Amino acid sequence: MLERIRIVLIGTSHPGNIGGVARAMHNMGLTDLALVAPRCEAITQDSISRASGADHLLHNAQVFATIEDAVGDCTLAVGASARSRTLPWPMLTPRELADRLPGECQSPNARVALVFGREDSGLTNEELQRCHAHVNIPTNADFSSLNLAAAVQVLAYECRMAWMGQHANEPAAQAAPRPDADDALASHADLERYFEHLERALVAIEFHDPDKPRQLMARLRRLYLRARPEQMEMNILRGILSATEKAAQHKQPRE
Amino acid sequence: MLERIRIVLIGTSHPGNIGGVARAMHNMGLTDLALVAPRCEAITQDSISRASGADHLLHNAQVFATIEDAVGDCTLAVGASARSRTLPWPMLTPRELADRLPGECQSPNARVALVFGREDSGLTNEELQRCHAHVNIPTNADFSSLNLAAAVQVLAYECRMAWMGQHANEPAAQAAPRPDADDALASHADLERYFEHLERALVAIEFHDPDKPRQLMARLRRLYLRARPEQMEMNILRGILSATEKAAQHKQPRE
Repeated sequence: MLERIRIVLIGTSHPGNIGGVARAMHNMGLTDLALVAPRCEAITQDSISRASGADHLLHNAQVFATIEDAVGDCTLAVGASARSRTLPWPMLTPRELADRLPGECQSPNARVALVFGREDSGLTNEELQRCHAHVNIPTNADFSSLNLAAAVQVLAYECRMAWMGQHANEPAAQAAPRPDADDALASHADLERYFEHLERALVAIEFHDPDKPRQLMARLRRLYLRARPEQMEMNILRGILSATEKAAQHKQPRE
Repeated sequence: MLERIRIVLIGTSHPGNIGGVARAMHNMGLTDLALVAPRCEAITQDSISRASGADHLLHNAQVFATIEDAVGDCTLAVGASARSRTLPWPMLTPRELADRLPGECQSPNARVALVFGREDSGLTNEELQRCHAHVNIPTNADFSSLNLAAAVQVLAYECRMAWMGQHANEPAAQAAPRPDADDALASHADLERYFEHLERALVAIEFHDPDKPRQLMARLRRLYLRARPEQMEMNILRGILSATEKAAQHKQPRE
């Protein structure tokens, strides 16, 4: 299970924090580190010092240009968020997330991304809307901003507790695979392709005006991410969009 | 409860770690920091930088010569230990410790010390034997040494979870209404109207043939029921279907 969990750091500024994250991950048995558009070098004297013997995670870290590249093959992406945003999103505590992990990781293509934002500003709304759910580490309301490595430490600890519970045949392992699933889950990249296709189709039937987007695509994202579509369901939804576009082609142009 | 918990650091060498501990404590709502025979200054540029706004904990920290002075007024002292020592001692996981805290803190004079050792060598056997119990943070057996601030972070997080569970009168986060909902859920009747409308629209765009239904509508039902749509989402989905039907009307008939 632990090898299926990827820690994704977006726009990190301080090498020491990347080193601290590597140490926290290795302490808890996580190995998969991804950096998205880092704003600093990952391998410096400071990061190696803070990694304190976990520097192989720094050397093995994959670097990506966008969040989409970093989570494209993931079946579940969870963004760390200090607060609920304008559009409420499924919100988990670290423990609720941990309770879900054993079940999530039973699917053969399962891969889980835990996504952490910039030290100064966290994740953008757009980045958060690419995640199936958000996880909020409970904090003192007057002082809620955790150090990046500390935030990773808490979630990695909960991951390890869930993994241990599973191996000890304890309650943490009771999360069965989704009982209604009969096919592999769609990957994050499948979903993004679906959202792009959906937006094109909604423009074609003149339901959506990208110049006046309101919250339409964000609301639809939230709905479909919540449903956790399977690959076969994704194929059906894509088929409906193609048939919709075909129908719209025959529509008389307004001009 | 949180104000009754004291973090005791013994023989700390790095000011940055003391700063990181202060930040982790303040994030989780702990305030009582004690330093025993520190091997460095507690207030330096590095510790203030790592405290990141929690430096009042550094200024308020009490400094003691011995562990006995630091925990003398405590009703429970728990030492963080990486491994069991020669003489087995009551050993708790962080979660078992957290489960005990609400009960421990009911006594009017209750005070709990969580004791952390040196960065390089932890607590001595003598120090550990001054504790009622030991707490072991589960780690990767090949890489078990946690950063000091990370270890405090994990225990402080468990303290906060226990405190929240107590205040919610329930296990930490049994929020009743779906936390991401910002509108009422659609009723069953709303959903049935949606499925009828969906079927008509799929016929109109020639994606669905009611004479050869296969499992199409059943699969779509399962998907949308799983998502538990809100009323506003239902309105959006109905709007999309109406726009789809309108586009399909203009399609040249086959006959």
